[in-house]
Amino acid sequence: MKRVEIGLLGFGTVGQGVFELLERQREILIKRTGLDLRVKRILVRDLNKKRPLPKELFTTNFEEILNDPEISVICELIGGLEPARTYLLRAIESGKQVVTANKAVLAEAGEEIFRLAKEKGVYLGFEASVGGGIPVIKTLKEALVGNRIESILGIINGTTNYILTRMLESNLSFERALEEAKERGYAEADPSLDLKGFDSAHKLAILASLAFGSYVSSEKIYVEGIDEIDLMDLKFSRDFGYIVKLVASARRTKRGIELMVFPALIPENHILTSVRLNYNAVYIKGDFVGDILLYGLGAGKEPTASAVVSDLVSAGEYLIHKRAPLLSYPQSTSHQLKILPISESLFRYYFRFTAVDRPGVLSKISGILGKYDISIASVVQIGRQIRKGAVPIVMLTHETQEKKVVDALNEIDKLDVVRAKTKRLRILT
Amino acid sequence: MKRVEIGLLGFGTVGQGVFELLERQREILIKRTGLDLRVKRILVRDLNKKRPLPKELFTTNFEEILNDPEISVICELIGGLEPARTYLLRAIESGKQVVTANKAVLAEAGEEIFRLAKEKGVYLGFEASVGGGIPVIKTLKEALVGNRIESILGIINGTTNYILTRMLESNLSFERALEEAKERGYAEADPSLDLKGFDSAHKLAILASLAFGSYVSSEKIYVEGIDEIDLMDLKFSRDFGYIVKLVASARRTKRGIELMVFPALIPENHILTSVRLNYNAVYIKGDFVGDILLYGLGAGKEPTASAVVSDLVSAGEYLIHKRAPLLSYPQSTSHQLKILPISESLFRYYFRFTAVDRPGVLSKISGILGKYDISIASVVQIGRQIRKGAVPIVMLTHETQEKKVVDALNEIDKLDVVRAKTKRLRILT
Repeated sequence: MKRVEIGLLGFGTVGQGVFELLERQREILIKRTGLDLRVKRILVRDLNKKRPLPKELFTTNFEEILNDPEISVICELIGGLEPARTYLLRAIESGKQVVTANKAVLAEAGEEIFRLAKEKGVYLGFEASVGGGIPVIKTLKEALVGNRIESILGIINGTTNYILTRMLESNLSFERALEEAKERGYAEADPSLDLKGFDSAHKLAILASLAFGSYVSSEKIYVEGIDEIDLMDLKFSRDFGYIVKLVASARRTKRGIELMVFPALIPENHILTSVRLNYNAVYIKGDFVGDILLYGLGAGKEPTASAVVSDLVSAGEYLIHKRAPLLSYPQSTSHQLKILPISESLFRYYFRFTAVDRPGVLSKISGILGKYDISIASVVQIGRQIRKGAVPIVMLTHETQEKKVVDALNEIDKLDVVRAKTKRLRILT
Repeated sequence: MKRVEIGLLGFGTVGQGVFELLERQREILIKRTGLDLRVKRILVRDLNKKRPLPKELFTTNFEEILNDPEISVICELIGGLEPARTYLLRAIESGKQVVTANKAVLAEAGEEIFRLAKEKGVYLGFEASVGGGIPVIKTLKEALVGNRIESILGIINGTTNYILTRMLESNLSFERALEEAKERGYAEADPSLDLKGFDSAHKLAILASLAFGSYVSSEKIYVEGIDEIDLMDLKFSRDFGYIVKLVASARRTKRGIELMVFPALIPENHILTSVRLNYNAVYIKGDFVGDILLYGLGAGKEPTASAVVSDLVSAGEYLIHKRAPLLSYPQSTSHQLKILPISESLFRYYFRFTAVDRPGVLSKISGILGKYDISIASVVQIGRQIRKGAVPIVMLTHETQEKKVVDALNEIDKLDVVRAKTKRLRILT
């Protein structure tokens, strides 16, 4: 049995979860791995906060943890960019193994963190940074090591998935569903990072870096959230046989890599539409493995602790064998990857026009679409007025290019018969 | 870069897939892992079979592979019990790392194979033995290392899942769906191992061994297949909101471990009902991670090769670091596990009685159920005659014990108003 001393940075929900797991499962872990994982010190901001643990365990001074020669693994659970970034870099620099659950720091400063870890030959575990307890990092790095990854399609934000599910299934407005998510602890007080899609983009940057073997910054990702989603569009989509989900998509195409986060219409018989409420899932296509789906709770104290501890075990293994990581990190340059601008992407589209209920309107709209080579697959004009004198016209198109759609809708929205900005969603096929 | 020489045993579909993957992805694999994995020799039965590869690669003599000091990894892709068992044991005995895709040999001789591998400190990879390309072994052993596994529910046989899906979705008889599965290569010429549930039981034995940390022989598993399934029951079940799937279930209960394979009614909103056609999935509950689902192609040349190669990479890692496996194999005794007989298990049940269409029949049947304390949740009598003078009565029960059901149905089937053996299926909740 080998004892491994751990320094925890942060003692919020996840930190407490990790501590509890290590205590409660000590025997199982020793039996399974031969490792006795011990939390030796915990970095907190406030020493005087009441905690049911001995005071000596806590410190407000990072140096005490960094300079403790017995501590060989540093586990960062603070979140956010700073001071997490500095702590991680200094821990790696000093040769300690590191584990982090922090997607933001990897999406924003991943390049230097990955590079330094490689240079120093230390283990860098980040399973909990994407998808909570779902083993998506391990699967991409290890299980699919023999595959060229063709695409990743993820529902990797529990807040937005909860809201979209509740809206559609219980006929709730966006505001009501958001309120409910907050009450249940599935949305933060300021949920904008989640709602606007940036949390998904952070996670997608990490997944894409692994999938394409080259560091991807989240700034390169096209991001559209669900903060302007309307219940009406979820229902019309369902009538056409689609469920709307906020997806994070990374796709290898002949012309380059597509990286985007957006609310998408997914065909009802796709397994991703079964991912409801606060569950997450990642759908991966590899050239040998075919389609794989990994599904589970994408956040929360216990699932996240489960992922962190699997990394702590790996860190312990690296320590024992004094080895450099064999499975390489993404390389530190993104130059090789040609990332396509969204304007070049091809999609089928869902449009909802808000137009006056008068002869000739549909002909005007479809005339403009025709001018931009956008071909209509189906159209439904709904009798019910949604605003004074205006009715919704819902249309699905055949595949077309994003930039044509932008131009066409600009022109359509200027028509005097059109009474509101046209709603546009992309369809996954 | 480290060169690793591999001896392949068997060159059927999977063997060819592994060979092709290693050739086609050589550069990716070297870049990602630093390992140059080379197949040095291949054991085949017939040297004269036409193959598009140099003759020197092949041998019919296992000793030539075993005694080649350059070959450090032996990859067994023959399948079946013998000679696979002997080859694996001899390879381990001689200190070579081993990888196998063979569920039968692990389910039947796993105890001695696991024990010897542990004793000799060699790596034993078996990811491809369950669920094809789905990383279920890695997830159970590594990602969920900090969890006590509460239950596993798997759809781990593609043949039967294909048949059940096609029957229900296209209104096909069992025979017609089986024929179609054969035409598409999803069923073997003699499909009885699959249809009778034994293939699922082999795989469940492996999963349960990992989940419960103690070797489980497939003989301990209660097995019921789909060879007596009737389209009518799939349709009635759907009317009640359930989809019938052949499941492999391992469950920790207060009174012991339940291990069983059977066709089950699964509630329509459970994600497992989205697993269609030849796809497989494993649904795992851990005490920290909550619910996890892993989904993908459970068989086939490329998906299986993907899993085998991830094990070959792990074998290469072990070689480089000359280390004994840290994550322990299941222990070699099953004495600690108390496995419950099916008669003790509790389920809700689906019954279809075939009874004469006459007053008082339902009262007779429900009288007997009442006598055995079996409580009825819902009942539907269908007008349409299914055989001369007899109509189906479909009933769902509340939770009750298997042995009571067996006794009650024995008595009911002896009634003169009952015209055929009652169909009984278990319901998962």
